[in-house]
Amino acid sequence: MIHSIGRQIAAKSQDIDYIFHPRSVAVAGVSNEQENLVGFTLLKPLMDFGVVSKIYPLNPKGGEYEGLKIHHGLTEIPGPVDHVIVGIPASLTPQLMRECVAKGVKAVTLFTSGFSEIQSRDAKRLEDEVLEIARQGGIRILGPNCMGIYCPKTGLTFDTGFSKESGPVGFIAQSGGNSITGIKVANARGIHFSKVISYGNACDLNECDLLEYLAHDPETEIIIAYIEGVKDGRRFSRVLKETVETKPVIIFKGGLGEAGARSTASHTGSLAGSDIIWDGIIRQAGAIRVYSVDEMVDVALAFLHMPAPKGRNIAVIGAGGGASVLAADDCERAGLRVPPLPPEIQSKLTKFTPEVGSFFKNPVDSQWIVHNPEQFADATIKIVSDWEGIDFIILHTALEMFVTQYLDLKQTMLDEIIDGFLESAQKSPKPTAVTFHPMVSERLQQAVNSKQQDFFRAGIPVYPSLWSAANAIAKFVQYHNSSRNGH
Amino acid sequence: MIHSIGRQIAAKSQDIDYIFHPRSVAVAGVSNEQENLVGFTLLKPLMDFGVVSKIYPLNPKGGEYEGLKIHHGLTEIPGPVDHVIVGIPASLTPQLMRECVAKGVKAVTLFTSGFSEIQSRDAKRLEDEVLEIARQGGIRILGPNCMGIYCPKTGLTFDTGFSKESGPVGFIAQSGGNSITGIKVANARGIHFSKVISYGNACDLNECDLLEYLAHDPETEIIIAYIEGVKDGRRFSRVLKETVETKPVIIFKGGLGEAGARSTASHTGSLAGSDIIWDGIIRQAGAIRVYSVDEMVDVALAFLHMPAPKGRNIAVIGAGGGASVLAADDCERAGLRVPPLPPEIQSKLTKFTPEVGSFFKNPVDSQWIVHNPEQFADATIKIVSDWEGIDFIILHTALEMFVTQYLDLKQTMLDEIIDGFLESAQKSPKPTAVTFHPMVSERLQQAVNSKQQDFFRAGIPVYPSLWSAANAIAKFVQYHNSSRNGH
Repeated sequence: MIHSIGRQIAAKSQDIDYIFHPRSVAVAGVSNEQENLVGFTLLKPLMDFGVVSKIYPLNPKGGEYEGLKIHHGLTEIPGPVDHVIVGIPASLTPQLMRECVAKGVKAVTLFTSGFSEIQSRDAKRLEDEVLEIARQGGIRILGPNCMGIYCPKTGLTFDTGFSKESGPVGFIAQSGGNSITGIKVANARGIHFSKVISYGNACDLNECDLLEYLAHDPETEIIIAYIEGVKDGRRFSRVLKETVETKPVIIFKGGLGEAGARSTASHTGSLAGSDIIWDGIIRQAGAIRVYSVDEMVDVALAFLHMPAPKGRNIAVIGAGGGASVLAADDCERAGLRVPPLPPEIQSKLTKFTPEVGSFFKNPVDSQWIVHNPEQFADATIKIVSDWEGIDFIILHTALEMFVTQYLDLKQTMLDEIIDGFLESAQKSPKPTAVTFHPMVSERLQQAVNSKQQDFFRAGIPVYPSLWSAANAIAKFVQYHNSSRNGH
Repeated sequence: MIHSIGRQIAAKSQDIDYIFHPRSVAVAGVSNEQENLVGFTLLKPLMDFGVVSKIYPLNPKGGEYEGLKIHHGLTEIPGPVDHVIVGIPASLTPQLMRECVAKGVKAVTLFTSGFSEIQSRDAKRLEDEVLEIARQGGIRILGPNCMGIYCPKTGLTFDTGFSKESGPVGFIAQSGGNSITGIKVANARGIHFSKVISYGNACDLNECDLLEYLAHDPETEIIIAYIEGVKDGRRFSRVLKETVETKPVIIFKGGLGEAGARSTASHTGSLAGSDIIWDGIIRQAGAIRVYSVDEMVDVALAFLHMPAPKGRNIAVIGAGGGASVLAADDCERAGLRVPPLPPEIQSKLTKFTPEVGSFFKNPVDSQWIVHNPEQFADATIKIVSDWEGIDFIILHTALEMFVTQYLDLKQTMLDEIIDGFLESAQKSPKPTAVTFHPMVSERLQQAVNSKQQDFFRAGIPVYPSLWSAANAIAKFVQYHNSSRNGH
């Protein structure tokens, strides 16, 4: 059963693979002014990012954009044009679509807004007209009112600042702004993408088509999705379920309440739908629901770096008594278990750690993190990990807790602590996440930022707060538990 | 009734006012090594911060610390010593306490740990002995196992990095580390303190004494408290209620679950108590409960800058369609109302704002924030504020949403947006909070940081995320509603 669904999806998904590999891209609406919106929003990133396709700016007026000739129309372009990115006014799009059909264009990204999302009958009619031309001409549309595609492998992008590295996360986002936010937050946390699709009003290609594609995309291992509304709830429900059979799906649903729904209608012309129904669909499919961009990235990070867990027992190891209390609270509030270490494990720890100012029951508050990072990495972590009652470890410290005069005196201390965490996490036999707590000063931020790449390379998930780590791990565990129970 | 309680509390609170104004402070346990823990943790901050009291380092071995003579004992000090900060091993403290009695010392801060928190019978007996000597000699004790006092006005501090500015917030914290975290997070968000007391195991002065003091301290307008456990629940319940009659109290209870309670016992020797009972006590008293240091600061910020609200109706005004959807969701999830703007208000807005790419129903997504900040500050905010259906405004933008190539092209854009927010919030006739969303790059962080002082000076609360703003305002509104209903 699963096998046959798999094949069915694979067949469909191949249909749109070409949109990520265009031989050539035309960008309509570019003018030769430097501050031209379409130029710097849609064309410049392709140029600067080093897209592998040929690029053709378009404008009936002609001209030049940063040394690139602006063609007067599609017919003027010598070879084939696979993909057209459209930034001209909505009213002019039907004519351009007809030219696309004539040219044999395969896919169109409609950046242009002013369609169904402005909720006027005329705008809806215009959207229908554009779709009708596309259907008859065999063109697939992304949008309107979207940013389109970011695919590091082929150099398609809408922001020059995105990572040029490919990674295993696929991301579909109904909002252009939230897609940019999501990508930047994820990149900053060491997550790279296979493909990101900002799909806006979804007049043609929608969340179901894109989920089906990513479900069988061999470059995608984890899917994250920001969705405001779906047109066909039944299909969505089925596709989501089928997709979760192939890989984890993390869903951030925008538009929960009255005002949220009002906004999704104005934003992407979406019917937000009842929150309870959404919750049911996501739960039944075995997907993971999140409530913010940051949480979406937090959870993706756990899936990216951690092996499937046996249970929800966590050891909380860190520096600082008060920080340990809060760490324990956050873990338990998130739904994790923080089991007391057995006396024999505790006494192994007390043998080489000073007792005053430390405690060993789980949470473990060990001064060695600060004063003897090597001992900590070699012994503390190992002793705790060896106990079978533990499935995960969170290593934490509140860097801002260290008094300024000590940091001034021992200039290398912050680096030593952070290095010690890296070494400990790498040596840990159990899956281990790291948290440095909120950063309150540029000094601390810089210390952590300068080491960030080392953690990324080592595959150690780093969280900005204990709560974000605990919550992400708890949702990760919950996913695997529900998978085991066949959802 | 309230009046007489007020007088009673005032009488008590005067009793300990002197601990914030010592004529002289001795620090016991200082040695002449530069990395001496007591020296740089307890003495150096007093020296560097410019404490108004005389300072006398103490050590039977004598010597010198950074040019300051180390006295062999209290008797060697010529004048009176009001306050002794103790960093010698626990076993030696009874002898020192007797010397304090002989010298006529009024208060002792026991930084030393290794008392009741290590949960051995001997350590508990030692704590009792120290307390007994103090009681008989008329000395008040802070701690043991605490950082003591931070009082910018008199220069008492335990971290050279704390703000030297005084402010209206009083803070009691059972954890030294969490007191440092709390102060640094608050300082970074523009909050300054009247008095902060880290009180550890609370063998003598406890949360009740300190709340009573702050309740009638004319320098304190808002109280925040991090508490792990109380010894006398009935007294705490009464004192908290009385304190809330005088000023708002924000309570962060540490040690919620099993593991949390295990940690508070090891950390400050506290019985954490049942979470349900705590919730009842806090609710009945009309205090505000929070669940993290950041949330504590978020809520304090609302109290600090916003006038008492009439209701819970908020206008959400910002840039970005997706960001507006999330903003609406966060407000409604927090318990605020986001009422639709009446058609006449909407049409006033549409008259001067481009319709494509904006919406006006509340949330208001206005391109003018980016492209015409002055128009935005002068017209948009005023039109929305004028509607009586609105009690508050949140101004928001996701700075990371702006594409990198645009920020590169228009180097001044970030500054212009942030300045526009400042001007708009200042001109807003309704209480207005600002949020710039999570900062994902150093470029954005620096842009916001560089303007932060301007927001602080203008009394505009700035939040790192929409959720943190919405949640803080919701708790602020709830407090005022329950106050009006006599809790």
